[in-house]
Amino acid sequence: MASRRAVVRRVPASGPDDVSGVEALFEEGLDPASVVAVLGKTEGNGCVNDFTRGYATRRFEDLFARHGAGGAAIVMSGGTEGALSPHWTVFAREEVDDEPEGALAIGVARTAAVAAEALGRREHAEMVADGVRRAMADAGVTDAADVHFVQVKCPLLTMARTEAAEARGATTATRDTLKSMGLSRGASALGVAVALGEIEFDRLADDDVCGDYGLFSSCASASSGVELLDNEIVVLGMSAAWSGPLAIDHAVMRDAIDVRSVAAVRERMGPGALVAALAKAEADPSGLVRGRRHTMLDDSDIASTRHARAFVGGALAGLFGETEIYVSGGAEHQGPPGGGPVAIILDRSGS
Amino acid sequence: MASRRAVVRRVPASGPDDVSGVEALFEEGLDPASVVAVLGKTEGNGCVNDFTRGYATRRFEDLFARHGAGGAAIVMSGGTEGALSPHWTVFAREEVDDEPEGALAIGVARTAAVAAEALGRREHAEMVADGVRRAMADAGVTDAADVHFVQVKCPLLTMARTEAAEARGATTATRDTLKSMGLSRGASALGVAVALGEIEFDRLADDDVCGDYGLFSSCASASSGVELLDNEIVVLGMSAAWSGPLAIDHAVMRDAIDVRSVAAVRERMGPGALVAALAKAEADPSGLVRGRRHTMLDDSDIASTRHARAFVGGALAGLFGETEIYVSGGAEHQGPPGGGPVAIILDRSGS
Amino acid sequence: MASRRAVVRRVPASGPDDVSGVEALFEEGLDPASVVAVLGKTEGNGCVNDFTRGYATRRFEDLFARHGAGGAAIVMSGGTEGALSPHWTVFAREEVDDEPEGALAIGVARTAAVAAEALGRREHAEMVADGVRRAMADAGVTDAADVHFVQVKCPLLTMARTEAAEARGATTATRDTLKSMGLSRGASALGVAVALGEIEFDRLADDDVCGDYGLFSSCASASSGVELLDNEIVVLGMSAAWSGPLAIDHAVMRDAIDVRSVAAVRERMGPGALVAALAKAEADPSGLVRGRRHTMLDDSDIASTRHARAFVGGALAGLFGETEIYVSGGAEHQGPPGGGPVAIILDRSGS
Amino acid sequence: MASRRAVVRRVPASGPDDVSGVEALFEEGLDPASVVAVLGKTEGNGCVNDFTRGYATRRFEDLFARHGAGGAAIVMSGGTEGALSPHWTVFAREEVDDEPEGALAIGVARTAAVAAEALGRREHAEMVADGVRRAMADAGVTDAADVHFVQVKCPLLTMARTEAAEARGATTATRDTLKSMGLSRGASALGVAVALGEIEFDRLADDDVCGDYGLFSSCASASSGVELLDNEIVVLGMSAAWSGPLAIDHAVMRDAIDVRSVAAVRERMGPGALVAALAKAEADPSGLVRGRRHTMLDDSDIASTRHARAFVGGALAGLFGETEIYVSGGAEHQGPPGGGPVAIILDRSGS
Repeated sequence: MASRRAVVRRVPASGPDDVSGVEALFEEGLDPASVVAVLGKTEGNGCVNDFTRGYATRRFEDLFARHGAGGAAIVMSGGTEGALSPHWTVFAREEVDDEPEGALAIGVARTAAVAAEALGRREHAEMVADGVRRAMADAGVTDAADVHFVQVKCPLLTMARTEAAEARGATTATRDTLKSMGLSRGASALGVAVALGEIEFDRLADDDVCGDYGLFSSCASASSGVELLDNEIVVLGMSAAWSGPLAIDHAVMRDAIDVRSVAAVRERMGPGALVAALAKAEADPSGLVRGRRHTMLDDSDIASTRHARAFVGGALAGLFGETEIYVSGGAEHQGPPGGGPVAIILDRSGS
Repeated sequence: MASRRAVVRRVPASGPDDVSGVEALFEEGLDPASVVAVLGKTEGNGCVNDFTRGYATRRFEDLFARHGAGGAAIVMSGGTEGALSPHWTVFAREEVDDEPEGALAIGVARTAAVAAEALGRREHAEMVADGVRRAMADAGVTDAADVHFVQVKCPLLTMARTEAAEARGATTATRDTLKSMGLSRGASALGVAVALGEIEFDRLADDDVCGDYGLFSSCASASSGVELLDNEIVVLGMSAAWSGPLAIDHAVMRDAIDVRSVAAVRERMGPGALVAALAKAEADPSGLVRGRRHTMLDDSDIASTRHARAFVGGALAGLFGETEIYVSGGAEHQGPPGGGPVAIILDRSGS
Repeated sequence: MASRRAVVRRVPASGPDDVSGVEALFEEGLDPASVVAVLGKTEGNGCVNDFTRGYATRRFEDLFARHGAGGAAIVMSGGTEGALSPHWTVFAREEVDDEPEGALAIGVARTAAVAAEALGRREHAEMVADGVRRAMADAGVTDAADVHFVQVKCPLLTMARTEAAEARGATTATRDTLKSMGLSRGASALGVAVALGEIEFDRLADDDVCGDYGLFSSCASASSGVELLDNEIVVLGMSAAWSGPLAIDHAVMRDAIDVRSVAAVRERMGPGALVAALAKAEADPSGLVRGRRHTMLDDSDIASTRHARAFVGGALAGLFGETEIYVSGGAEHQGPPGGGPVAIILDRSGS
Repeated sequence: MASRRAVVRRVPASGPDDVSGVEALFEEGLDPASVVAVLGKTEGNGCVNDFTRGYATRRFEDLFARHGAGGAAIVMSGGTEGALSPHWTVFAREEVDDEPEGALAIGVARTAAVAAEALGRREHAEMVADGVRRAMADAGVTDAADVHFVQVKCPLLTMARTEAAEARGATTATRDTLKSMGLSRGASALGVAVALGEIEFDRLADDDVCGDYGLFSSCASASSGVELLDNEIVVLGMSAAWSGPLAIDHAVMRDAIDVRSVAAVRERMGPGALVAALAKAEADPSGLVRGRRHTMLDDSDIASTRHARAFVGGALAGLFGETEIYVSGGAEHQGPPGGGPVAIILDRSGS
């Protein structure tokens, strides 16, 4: 009986333009057309003027084009603070003849374009929720409890889009481009939470987006980009219909030093080699971690997102003994305030 | 039979000028004259233009003066990156009537002034080695194996000192003030290594200082400052002649993610509440951590010392579940390259 | 016939704690009690975590206390980007026997404490306007056209103040401490504009504060600080009742490169040595300077205020041939958007 | 009688990847094959981890390839601090039927590859000097006094190149990649000085490179890059054999605020519209500007090169009333210490 098998490969990058490691995978036999997503950590500041993301994205687009493929989600997260190491994680899926045995499943979906006046609002969350459900179906994952990581790449509002909306009499959630990025991430994460049954859509109001951080998803990771108008969704979960050595589970860090929760999940997963760790981090908005003051939000020299990635990166790297970890900032509604989700993908084959 | 007892108190700071928590300790009965050292983490950048250290130092000098005391070593380390929390750690010692039982012992010493032409050279290391031996004697620690942390505050070369030396026909190790700070820390750490038998003085050459990083002390922590011409030394160790609930031990991180070595030491110390964790951190000069590239040394926006403190701070805070940790940068000859010593002080009384 | 005479002395600072140059002025005969204000440029980042301002302020308070004086306005502005040079400008006034001849006049005033719910609103502006009128009276300046620079040091909202207001049923203009600083500066600048007849108080609404930047004063310079609850006002102008060699005038830069407007004012003032240049600078909120894109507002590595001070500092230093210039950031309603006021004080005695 | 004519076009860039403005020039008729150089200001930090330069370079290479051209020198300088505006300056040359009348002349040359052991040394300077002479010949400029700007793009030492040299028994000037960039720029600038008769080659020693800053060229602008092994040289000067409306002259700023020297040259050039201003800037290594302390070299938050570009950029933008100015950092032997050359290109046609 045939089954699907997920392939996840982590490749070091010597710079934001270095896609040679992924090209080597193609030469070794990985089918470029089987790739559904690339998640990258690039060495920019991860903030507004981080051009390493666009540089890397263009390099991957060129690479896929050279190999006659295309359509993979390219999600670049800037910031390898501390000893975090720049790298790409390639997600692919193959049809194999193996018996299904329960393994990592990957599903993808795209939504319709988000109207400027819907972006960062309840309607945006609803579109994402629908997309997550379709990505789950694509992955063959039926139970929300089997979903462990949902990456959403979502749009933002440029001044041009805002003004076009206003010209037709509509109003947008904000006129500030930077704020629209947070609202878009927030609405996307809330959409994930709706799809996974973590919150009820009926109780969600426009103002809750970046308003009530008590609402969150334990599996969402969102990033917004200027290069798309719709939402690009990648769901990672476990499915009985898939085969192969890979498994995924996730933990929720309650705060920036809650390594214990991650260690517990790692332990319950049993033996296996770490293939990927995917985490979100942020400076606790309360200004405190376990009652002690932190200075990240008051530092005008270094953005708090950079501080948070370095610090949580150190905590997770210490736990895993590995510095190629995907730690992403900007965690609105992605895990509890000051904490965040951590997905772990293991290769059980050697065990 | 009387004994000495070490008192170590950790106090949060709401800013570099906030000495109110220490003043409260005095009001609660701690004798200002019993204080031999204050180690502080302040929220500056920890680099050249970090004025939080001088500001805090002056506030403590004023505080001790107001209370008729003085002479305590004031050692300020700038940089509370990530969720590290600004705080002071106060070290005092008291005569008590308790039986000696084996406990944390504190010894202090000062050397003669370091001639400008000796600074950062073999002769400087020799002076520090002699001072460490005297501080050990002051603490009643006879075996180097019982020493777990040696803090050295050492001088630097100003342009005026260098020119005065040259006027009398002498040459200094460097004409660069910033470099003289590293050389002074390096020679001090090597002096600690000599005193503790980690390296042989006879084999030490001037060029080894900040030259051969294979030579290092596993217990040294050095910081240089413009406000002194001699070396101020604080030795922390275990002594059978001391009493009280405090105990100290130390680990050596082999690299920035070697949390395992610290966890092992923490475990062998047995039950107890964490009183203080004192660590040094640095960006691995090889540009790699366990074979993976890091970007700290190539980041022209954030100093590598800031990256390293944030990252190692996260690793240790994750382990200890505590963000008031003394993580200091600038680790020349203080632990292996890319790694560093970590001293742990526990209060065993609740156990 | 007796008159008053203004004394303005500019003194270099070797660091934020270096008040030795001002102490030297006292030793040379300047009466500490005659000093009404000290404006300082310190070498911090000029943003939230700039402790050089507090450090310098405390040093000056100690200095005045040691000399039995007090009550002078201490206004510290952080940020000496580019080749701007850290320095203090001391403003004093003396009674002399000279004939009044028309010269720089200095007046000071303090307002009542600003209620938390009034801060950053129309009522705040009204209080400042009243204070400016009293400071003008104190200076003997009757015509608003003779006022050339008004420095306001104004309060901010701490979380504690906001919560106390809310406990008594009041609401504040913002719950965000950082935003309250901008609103306080903005309301203060609008208060100056009201007092000088630049805008009409009756047309001013709460929402105009940091809302309508078309409203501004050409003479206002405001900075907010946590150390006061009222507004401290210093007015500099020309008065026929004062004597001495000093004269003041002011220009308004229309944008960050409008050196021409300043050069024109400098020229019309006639011969004389530059005693002080006092300016405000900001990144043009439109993202453009004369139709060309600037990148200050998108730079997540360096605060836009630091960029603006460096750049405008360079423009003014090039014009004046002098790097001890007071260029301050945070220019809400202080000059037109992207531009700012520049006051020039000359010593005409050598001419 | 035929002649050559220089074309210089300045084009705004909306980001490091925006080459659309140059493509538009091609569509309007500029022959891509006529372009000999593109000088760009991109919005990175201008330091080690500035990927905007490589991103822009790759975009231009793709652009020229798409248009069947290639071989133009692509020189990207990172850093548009303050209100400096990102832009490209395109240099082309055409054969025309006009009478030669004396105009801007452009010449180019490339040297042989620089051996690793020669880089940053006397031999490197000699190679560049020879290349400059050939570029002058290519431009038809015979008198060194007619040369006003020489751009050199020079190589650097990677660890691999250094180790290869050592493997064959040679030693390099440094083992530090970053230092090799400064040495390469320095040797290149000294080579320019030799070619222009500003210094004598016979008196030049290896140690003078980045050693004796009293030796410098008033026309050199050098930048080093990892992408080439030889030196790419562009000479701009005046030649009687060229025609067209463009003229060039240059000034030397003695220090960071010496706008007067530039204004004097601008004035002697007569009427005309500013086409390009090309300048080098650096923090004065003495720590002083006209006797006043600056803080650029002690700022561990912002690189001194960024401070210097912002400040000098402001001074020049104030003078020219224009923010599209090419201000480049890293000015070893390029103008006097703390100062730098400024080339001005005017279009005299409207006058």
